[in-house]
Parts: sequence; structure tokens; C-alpha cells
Amino acid sequence: MDFLADFMSRLIAQFQSPSLAFLLGGMVLAASGSKLQIPDAIYKFCVFMLLMRIGLEGGMEIREANLGDMLLPGFLAVVIGCGIVFAGRFTLALLPGVRFEDGVATAGLFGAVSASTLAAALVMLEEQAVSYEAWVPALYPLMDIPALVLAIILANIYLAKQKDGKRSRVSIGAIVSDSLRGSALSALLLGLALGLFSRPEIVYEGFYDPLFRGLLSILLLTMGMEAWTRLSELRRVAHWYAFYATTAPLVHGLIAFGLGYLAHLLTGFSPGGVILLAVIASSNSDISGPPTLRAAIPSANPSAYIGASTSVGTPVAIAVGIPLYIALGEAVFGF
Amino acid sequence: MDFLADFMSRLIAQFQSPSLAFLLGGMVLAASGSKLQIPDAIYKFCVFMLLMRIGLEGGMEIREANLGDMLLPGFLAVVIGCGIVFAGRFTLALLPGVRFEDGVATAGLFGAVSASTLAAALVMLEEQAVSYEAWVPALYPLMDIPALVLAIILANIYLAKQKDGKRSRVSIGAIVSDSLRGSALSALLLGLALGLFSRPEIVYEGFYDPLFRGLLSILLLTMGMEAWTRLSELRRVAHWYAFYATTAPLVHGLIAFGLGYLAHLLTGFSPGGVILLAVIASSNSDISGPPTLRAAIPSANPSAYIGASTSVGTPVAIAVGIPLYIALGEAVFGF
Amino acid sequence: MDFLADFMSRLIAQFQSPSLAFLLGGMVLAASGSKLQIPDAIYKFCVFMLLMRIGLEGGMEIREANLGDMLLPGFLAVVIGCGIVFAGRFTLALLPGVRFEDGVATAGLFGAVSASTLAAALVMLEEQAVSYEAWVPALYPLMDIPALVLAIILANIYLAKQKDGKRSRVSIGAIVSDSLRGSALSALLLGLALGLFSRPEIVYEGFYDPLFRGLLSILLLTMGMEAWTRLSELRRVAHWYAFYATTAPLVHGLIAFGLGYLAHLLTGFSPGGVILLAVIASSNSDISGPPTLRAAIPSANPSAYIGASTSVGTPVAIAVGIPLYIALGEAVFGF
Repeated sequence: MDFLADFMSRLIAQFQSPSLAFLLGGMVLAASGSKLQIPDAIYKFCVFMLLMRIGLEGGMEIREANLGDMLLPGFLAVVIGCGIVFAGRFTLALLPGVRFEDGVATAGLFGAVSASTLAAALVMLEEQAVSYEAWVPALYPLMDIPALVLAIILANIYLAKQKDGKRSRVSIGAIVSDSLRGSALSALLLGLALGLFSRPEIVYEGFYDPLFRGLLSILLLTMGMEAWTRLSELRRVAHWYAFYATTAPLVHGLIAFGLGYLAHLLTGFSPGGVILLAVIASSNSDISGPPTLRAAIPSANPSAYIGASTSVGTPVAIAVGIPLYIALGEAVFGF
Repeated sequence: MDFLADFMSRLIAQFQSPSLAFLLGGMVLAASGSKLQIPDAIYKFCVFMLLMRIGLEGGMEIREANLGDMLLPGFLAVVIGCGIVFAGRFTLALLPGVRFEDGVATAGLFGAVSASTLAAALVMLEEQAVSYEAWVPALYPLMDIPALVLAIILANIYLAKQKDGKRSRVSIGAIVSDSLRGSALSALLLGLALGLFSRPEIVYEGFYDPLFRGLLSILLLTMGMEAWTRLSELRRVAHWYAFYATTAPLVHGLIAFGLGYLAHLLTGFSPGGVILLAVIASSNSDISGPPTLRAAIPSANPSAYIGASTSVGTPVAIAVGIPLYIALGEAVFGF
Repeated sequence: MDFLADFMSRLIAQFQSPSLAFLLGGMVLAASGSKLQIPDAIYKFCVFMLLMRIGLEGGMEIREANLGDMLLPGFLAVVIGCGIVFAGRFTLALLPGVRFEDGVATAGLFGAVSASTLAAALVMLEEQAVSYEAWVPALYPLMDIPALVLAIILANIYLAKQKDGKRSRVSIGAIVSDSLRGSALSALLLGLALGLFSRPEIVYEGFYDPLFRGLLSILLLTMGMEAWTRLSELRRVAHWYAFYATTAPLVHGLIAFGLGYLAHLLTGFSPGGVILLAVIASSNSDISGPPTLRAAIPSANPSAYIGASTSVGTPVAIAVGIPLYIALGEAVFGF
């Protein structure tokens, strides 16, 4: 009861937080037919800055961190990413009206990770003074890459079986290296490497970190506009996508919260870390995932997987997921 | 005598203020044939940031403001915007060598409002520590939209009469909603709404406000280059445009100053507010107005109205108008 | 011995400085085939901001400076710029497998100046608290323009002699004014003029200066990617270019250091100024030079001069040159 009241008050407060307000603002703008556009160069710059900031901080922290502490959460990240894809493969992909490869591709995006959702959660934890191991955001690629790789493999195995006999081999190495070279993961890994091996404190503290929140507000505005614009695509595919996109992020986040809580009991993983693990699981890829899927599963329908993730998944993960996991964290850990 | 000396010393000091210096710098660059270009994406980003900053501050202030205080200045903004267009319709538009629809379109732009001129005035008032009700910049759309709408209606009534009989109906609703959806007003209204309904203080204070002056300097540099480039277009139309563009901003500003002073006497409208009302009246639309007019009065000649406003009107309003109204304010209010 | 140890420790530390780490990071990204791209508009914006910042600071300082102090260093800058081109004309351009005009064009780029190398040196001197006359960066055009002009003249004299008789006259005035109107020098001179004649302190301190280091990191990242991409071009031309590009920056810097040291003895030119003069001499033009050369010596092969300067010259000047001159400064001046 207390929990519900707390969650509701957080949910309402959340709608006033700059992060969510800008996301909603973007949706309202697009819905009202505004001609406002954030230039593509600015959008890409915002994404780059966010990922560099997350990467740099992660790298600088891993430098000081006890690597043993990262083992279990890192393992969980891989397991959750793959688990989400398997779960989607055995639910969404088998539903009536859903083509198998479309369903698997969608599950792949929901297993992968969104930098903007993660960034919004970091800002909110900071506002609430909930601390976490600073290397937690660096778990991003450990969930992102396996999920995309697995989805692509599952789809290709299915398609190969369809063509029966003519097995087209799927090169896992090529998919992994393709993912790593995508613009989002490149920026994150570059930031990680620079944080680990150089001394970027001065540009981190004077540039990447102070601009973080502001650029996030612009990014979320853009994503709100994009989400609204893509909604019409979602209408063209089976309603199951909308259902999956609304519920899956929350289910994924709750399961990840549970696994993170286990890690908390076993190895002292921090409450903030548990919440972030849930957020990462809850989020779905909106930047790097779609082009990777488009290249690797060309027969899948982008309207299905992009519509589901960008238009519904991301808003749900940010607007409902983040306050839910924070309220849960408060109820469980009593901070 | 004292006033004149004060105005002249302000005018000279003004030419050293970063705002005006960057505007002049842009004109000098363009005049000397420099190949320097501010990328369009950066220009659009600067405009967006300025309007968001003005909107956010306005919205946050309206939240706290006594709405009753805004009534009279808001009414005056509408009256001044329409008055400027009527005045232009009965002077400029009837002059020899001036086509009626070109004259009305030009008057429409001069009735509408420039975000960069307003931003330059805000920076200057801040430097001189002249205070104003923070909702004053939010009067922008109350002058901007009626002026554009009225100009379009007057032009279309005239054009309809020309084609005698075949009255093409002008849809006021369509023009208003078109204006509201333009990129400049969208950004301003989004900022207002976010300021009113969310809690954007943290991004406002950490991002939008501190970057305001710097981005304004880049914007004014770009506008200076644009102003010089457009001058050649102005030479192709009647000299009356140059005369109107030089004198009208000052006349409009002085009349608005008088009306604002009345509001000061009646309701205690602040001296800074009176100066800003004069600046808003003095300014002419350089971002959102021209494309609106181009779409709504296709037969009007853009060389006439854009040349007059961008090349002459804006520089006059910033370089002469702002110091004039501040000096006047000092003489009248003795701050 | 001590000097060598000091230089080596600086060299290693240097690879951890954000400036160099971002440059290397860019090379690694490009080498690994990353799809990350910094949008062109952002790259141009970074260049503009850097040059404005250097120009503004130079202008504000010249305002206060004793012009007499600038005479000798200014004269040296011109002499070094021309000397580098002459040296290249009598070495590189005469080597087997090197076309004369390609060699002279390359020497022109190495005589000209790089804003990013200069910016990296400014940041490093600041980190080490080595002071310098703040007008030193304003020596930039005094070395840049004469070098480019001389290279173009030498190439055109040669080409004219080839066509024997049919002397195509080279207009020095046109080359100079073309150089001054290029986007890099325009921005620098605009900044200088605004710093000299207006009062830009407020935007300098609140915008251009604080964003300097961060934008430099993005610029160096982009240049690292570019350097790697251009390497393949370098492979297509004679190996002498690679040899010249590796050694010439260091030789130029050491000679400039010696001349700067003379100025130190004669007029008290500061140790930091001597180091910066060496850095400016060591650097090669990567922004404004190539398009100027392409227009003025159309028969020269851009693969030769751009490959040599962007892919090898700039990394060498930043990674080896700057720590070398700082170590040398420490050994000589004992700061």
C-alpha cells in the first residue's frame, strides 16, 4: 500500500522531471504537427556526448574498481540480455499474426540497451542521491551485444530451416565485430578505453559531465518526436507488438531487479546498482540496434521492431520503469 | 541635452558590447568575402537554444506571477503588433513603386518579433542591472502572431478584390495554427509549457542559461553575415523599403515605450518591462516570419520584405533601438 | 641524460593527456573500421570555436601588450614560415620520385600552421603552469600566410618556366587576400579584431574559454580518424613524403626553438613563448592550407601533401614535438 502510494507519487513527480518532460514535450510537438526539428548533426552529437560521458566515467571507475566485484553483475548482464531474447522467441515470435523473424528481431532490440534511458536513470539516481558502483553503466555492452547477436542467430537459423537444406551459415564473429563497430558502441568503448588508459579527468569534469543533463534533454526531446512519428508504423503491424512493447520492459526490469537483489545478497552489489541493472534490462536499443538488425535480418519488417521499441518501449521504460525500480529499491533497501 | 549625451555614449559603448560587435563582425566578414560559414545545423541549434531559454524562463516565472499583472502588457502587445501592420498598410504599402502586397508583407515582418533582438536586449538589461518581470519575454507570441495573421489577411483581401468577385476566403484559423507550428514559435511555446508544468530548473541553470550569451554571439555573427548578403536584394527594390526599414523600428519602439509607460503609471509595469516592450515592438521577424509569409502570400516579393527586415531592420533595432530605449528609460525612470 | 629521461617521461605522460589520447583514440577507431562519425557541422563548429577563442584571447592581450615586444617574435614567425618553405624546396622537392610542385606544396603546408596543434600546446602549457605572453598565439597568421604564399609562388614560377615563355603571372595580392578570406584565418582574425576593439570578456570567459578543452578533444578525435583514413593515400606516393613528414616537424621546431631562445636573450621573450614558437613552426596546416593549395596549384597531387601533413605531420608534431619542446624548455630555462 505504502509502496503503491510511493510509486504513484514518484510516477507523478517523474512527469515533472526534466528528462521525462522533454520526452513528452517531443511527443506533443510531433502530435501537433510542429515544424521544429533538431538537426541530425546535433542529434548525433548529443548521442556521442552521452556515450562518451558514460564511457569515460565507467573507464575511470573500472581503473579503481575491484574487478572481482564486477564479475557477477557482468555475468548477470549477459544472462539477462540472452534471456530476454529467448523469452521473446518463445512468446512474441510465436503469436498469431507475428512473423517469426519480426518477433525475434523485436526481442533482440528489447534485450539490447538504450543509452538515453540509461542516462535518464543516472540523472534521476543522482537527484535522489542513490549511490551505485560507477562501473555499472559499463555493463551496457555486456547485455547489448549478446542480445543482438543471439537474435540475429535465432532469426537466421529459422530462415535457414525454412529454405530447408540450403543452410546459410551465420558468422557470430562478424556479427559481434559489426556490433562493436557501430557508432554507439564505438563511442562507448572509446570512452571506456580513454577513461581506463588516459587521464581524461579534466575534460570529463569541465565538458562531458556538465553538458550531460542538458544534452540529454535535447536528445529526449528528439526521441519523443521520433516516437510519435513512428507510432503510425506500429499501427500497421499486429497489436501484439504494442502489447509486448508495453509489458515486456517492465517484466524484464523486474526480473533483472530480482537477479540484482540476489547479487546484492551474495556480493554486496549496491542498491543503486540493482536499480540500474533493472533499468538497463528494461531499456531497448534505439540507436545502434535498428541498423544492425536491418543489415543482419533483411527480411524482418522494421515497422514492427522499430515501432515497438522507439514508440512504446522507450517511453514506457523511462516514464514507468525508472520510477518503478526506484520505488522498489526504496521499499526493499529502505534508503 | 543630457539625454542626447547619454544616448550617444550608450550608442558608442553598445558597439563594443559583444552582441553588437558580433553582428558588425559578421557584416564585415561578409563584406570582405570571407569563406567562413556557420553550419546551418549550428545556426538552427543556436535559435532553438535561445528560444527554449527564453521560453523556459518565461514559463517558470509565469508559474509564480500574478496573472492580473500580465493582462495590460499582453493586451498592449497585441495592439502594438496589429497597429504596426495597419500603419504599414496605410504608409509603406501606398507609396509609389511599392506593390501593395509587398508593403503589407514587409509591415507584417516588422510587426512580428525577433528572438535574437529580444535576446540581445535581455543580455544588455542584465549587464546594466535593470530588472523586469521575467514573464515579459513571454509576450513575444502575443505580438508576433497577430501581426503575421493581420498582414496575411490584409494582403489576401486586397488580392481577392483585384481578382474582383472571385473572393478567395482567408482561413484565420489555418494561419494561426500554421504560425504556432513554425519552428520558432514551437520552440518558444515548448519552453513555456515545460517551464510552467515541469521542473526544468536544473537544466535551465546548468545548460540553457549559461550557454545563452555565447550562442547568441554566434547567432548574431551569422545574422550579420546574412544581413550583408541580403543587402544586394534590397537594392533591387524601391528605395522606400530602405527608408521604412531604417525609421520604422525606432518609431514603433518609441510608441511602444509610450504605451508601456502608461502601463507603468496604471499598473506598475516595471521600467525594464517598458524597455523590453519597446524592443519587442522595434524588432522584426527574421526566423519564423519569412517562410510563413512566403507560403501565405506567394505573390509578394521576398527580396522586398526579407531585404528590408534582415539587412536593415534587425541591425537598426539592435544597434540603435536598444541603447535608445535604455537611455530613454534612464531619463524617464531615473534608475 | 637527465634531459632524455625527462623527455621520455613527458612523452609517456603525454600519451595519457586528453589531447593526445583523443588523437590516438581517433586513429584506433578508424583503424578498427568503426562507423562512428563526428558530423561535419560539429567539426566545423569546433574549429570555429577554437580559432575564435585563440583570436579573442590574442586580441584582448594585444590591447594591453607593448607592441615593441611583439616585433622580434613577429619577424621571426615570418622568417621561419618562409625558411621552412625554402628548405623544403631545396630538399624534398628535389628528391627522386617527388614532383617539384608536390614537394613545394607539401613544404607550404608544413610552413603553415595548425590551430589544433597550437590549441593542444596551449592546454599543455597551462597544465604545467608555464606562462607565456598571451599574444603569442596571435603570431599564427604571421607564419601561416607567408608560407602558403611563398609555396604557391615558387610552384607557379616553376610551372611557368616549364611552359617556357608563356609566363603566367602570379598575383601575390590575390593569394594573400584569398588566404585571409579562408574560413580558418577569417575566424582567427575576427576573434582578434573583436578582442582588440570590443569588450568580449563576458562571452570569452563564459563560453569560448570554458568550452575550449572539450571541443579540442572532439576535434582531435576527428583528426585522428582523418589521419588514419589518409594514410592509405600516403602509401600511393614516394616514401620520401613519409620521411619528410616524420622528421621535418621536429627539425623545424628545434630551429624555431633556437631562434626563440635568441629572442629570449635579446628581448626577454618568455620561455613559454619560445616553446609556443617552436610548436607553431613544428605544426602543419590541416584546415585552411589544403583547399588554398588545391585552388592555387591545381597540378599538385593532394594525396602527397595532405597525406604527409594530416596523417604523419600533425600526429608527430603533437605527440613528439610538444613534449620535446617542453622538456627542452625545462632543460634550458630551468622552470
